[in-house]
Formats: sequence, structure tokens, C-alpha cells
Amino acid sequence: MERHFETSLRDLKGQLLAMAGQVEKAIESAIEALQTGNIEKITLVDAIENKINQAHIAVDDACIKLLALQQPLAADLRLIVAILKINTDLERMGDQAVNIAHHAEQYIKGTPVKPLVDLPLMFQEARFMVREALDAFVKSSEPLARDVLKRDDIVDGLKDKISKDVLEHVKTNPILIEQGLILILIARNLERIGDHATNIAEDVIYAMSGEDIRHSSQLATMKKAIS
Amino acid sequence: MERHFETSLRDLKGQLLAMAGQVEKAIESAIEALQTGNIEKITLVDAIENKINQAHIAVDDACIKLLALQQPLAADLRLIVAILKINTDLERMGDQAVNIAHHAEQYIKGTPVKPLVDLPLMFQEARFMVREALDAFVKSSEPLARDVLKRDDIVDGLKDKISKDVLEHVKTNPILIEQGLILILIARNLERIGDHATNIAEDVIYAMSGEDIRHSSQLATMKKAIS
Repeated sequence: MERHFETSLRDLKGQLLAMAGQVEKAIESAIEALQTGNIEKITLVDAIENKINQAHIAVDDACIKLLALQQPLAADLRLIVAILKINTDLERMGDQAVNIAHHAEQYIKGTPVKPLVDLPLMFQEARFMVREALDAFVKSSEPLARDVLKRDDIVDGLKDKISKDVLEHVKTNPILIEQGLILILIARNLERIGDHATNIAEDVIYAMSGEDIRHSSQLATMKKAIS
Repeated sequence: MERHFETSLRDLKGQLLAMAGQVEKAIESAIEALQTGNIEKITLVDAIENKINQAHIAVDDACIKLLALQQPLAADLRLIVAILKINTDLERMGDQAVNIAHHAEQYIKGTPVKPLVDLPLMFQEARFMVREALDAFVKSSEPLARDVLKRDDIVDGLKDKISKDVLEHVKTNPILIEQGLILILIARNLERIGDHATNIAEDVIYAMSGEDIRHSSQLATMKKAIS
């Protein structure tokens, strides 16, 4: 029974990581569509999203079967609940890749708004967060997970900067307003990808230590305000 | 043991619904801030979000304790997994209420962009979806849950209409561009609240029937395309 559980858990992790690989591919293809104007990449993102959605259902199913048949406790139970949550975050990252791809589709039909401001940089940062969150999961590494949390501020800062730059630019070129809005929305899609990576990092820490650090910076602020 | 499980489950549902009540209050207060310019409502939303975040952690804890101590099967197991998911969606709705409140804070400092286009109507529609999804959960009603799913298109349509109307308006009044962007972003926050209500409705259907209808419209499209 014990050995059976270990095998099932290893299979489940493998399933989740295969799905994560598809999510990473979808995000990259979406940004490539924007940067190169290659319309085939958009079709590719849609096709990958279908696979992600099927994997999403399959991972949830596998988690529930493990919970029902093996009735795990303590760290094993926490890990399976964490996988249920990571599964949701991965699927939502896939949705964001689709959003980016469809924004890119609109964007490349119109006049480009000067170089893509800091979007390529923001993409690299968000992409790194995703990779690092998944590495933290694979290696059960709390330091990697905590590094992901730190990086979220960089991505949020880039989103604000991109919005500001684009607004300044289109204010003097109101004809570019739709195009500018698309870039602002893509920056928000990337920000959400970073948020999902943060959620995954928090779930890794929870699964490993049983420590729930979600909302903890807020708690710290509250305590400060009270003291 | 059986009776103890029933009591714990009833307590857990009560905890989730108390949290849902806070979420509804946060959404309403955020929109009230935008519509009336009452800055106190923004502080109120921040205070409610703190409570929501604490409830989020507490509900997850209670779910894990129930899974560990009672090792539920079949419908009970599905219900607890559904509550874990609904808990996440409620917490994210709270985040969206905070986003709306802070967008409202910026908006009321500036020049208003004509009446708030269709935002009040979109708010009503999104608000209705949230209420109906929670009713579906309380009453274990599949018809109510399915009605929520149908309404998502209305909310998405309103978001598109608002973006279009605002863009047309600011194109001839580029000075209003920042203000217009805020309204477009609030429409997106409301759209996401509608998406979370949809997720809750899907979880209710899953908990009741074991049927996973997520991504099913897409599956139908795929099957159609293949046939």
C-alpha cells in the first residue's frame, strides 16, 4: 500500500510537470507571436491550451483518487492539496497565455506603438518566476520558492512603468490609443502570470513546512499599524 | 463519528458563507466608492479584505483537518475539494473588490468621463452572478448553477461594450485618457468577478454530480471540429 502510494504520487507529480511544460510553451509562443508577428504561434497557443485544459481535469481527478483510495495524512495530504491548487494556477496561466496571444493578434494587425517599451523585459521576468516556482516544486526548495515571492515586486513595477510610458506616448498620438491599450493589457496578463507563479511558490512552502504564508506581509503590516 | 462529520461539515459551510458575505459587502462598497465618490468606502473595502484573507486561511485549515481526521469518500470528499476551490475564488473576488476600490480612488480624484457608461449595469449583472452562485451552493441547486454559467456571456459582452464606448470617447478627448483607462480596468475587474462566480457554479455542479463540466464547451467545439 505504502509503495503503491509513492508510485501514484510520483506519477501525479509527473503529470503536473508535463502540464507545466505545456504552460511554459504557451506563454513563450504567445510572446513570440507579439514580438515576431507570426500568426501561426497564435494557433499554436490555442492548441496547447486545449491540452492544458485536459491535463487540468486529469490532475484534479488523480488528486481526488489519491485522497479517496490512500487517505494520506500530514505532509502527503498537504502535498496533494498543494497540487490541487498548483493545478488551478497552471490552468489560469494557460488562460493568460491565450489572452496574450489574442491581444497580440489584434496588435499585429495595427500600427505598432514604438518599440514594445519594457514588455520584452517584463516577459523575461515573469517567465523566470514561472521557471523558478516550478523548480522550487521539483526540488522541494524553500529558498527558491521564497526568491519567487521577492520577484513579484519587480514584475508589478514593470507593469506600472509600461502603463505610464504607453499613456504618455498615446496622449500625443491619440490615433494609437487602441494599440496602446493592447500593450497595457498584455502587461497586465504578464502581471497575472507572475501572481500565479507567486501562488505556486506559496503552495510549495505550505506543502513543505505546513506554514501558510499567504497574506502574511499584510498581517505584518496590520500588526505594525496596531503596535 | 458520522454525526461529528456532519456537524463539522455544517460548521465549514457556515464559515465559507460568512466569508462570502464579506466578499459581497466588499464588492458593493467598492462600486459605491466609484459611484458616490465616498472615500470612506475605500478604507472599508481594505478592512473587509483583511477579514476575507483571514477567513481564507481558516477555511483551508478546516478543510484539511476534515480530510485528515474524517477521511471522507465520494460525495463528501468532492464537496470538501469543491469548498477548497470555492474558498480560493472567494478570496480572489475580494482582491478584485480591492482593485476596483483603488481604481475608484484614482478615478474620483480626476475629471469624470461622462456618465459611467454601462458600468453600473455590468456591476448589477456581476453582482447577480455572485449571489446566484452562492445560492446554488447553499441550496445545492444545479439549475441555479447552470444559470450562472449562461450569464457569463452577458458580463463579457458588457465589458467589450464599455471598452469600445470609452475608447471612442477619449479618442476625441485625449486629456481624459487616464480616466478612461481606469473605467476599462474596472470593467475587467468586474469581468473577473463574473469568472470567479462561474468557477464557483462549476464547482457546485461537480460537488453534486461528480460531473466535471469545466472546459466542456471547448470540448464540444473540438468534437465538432473533428467530426
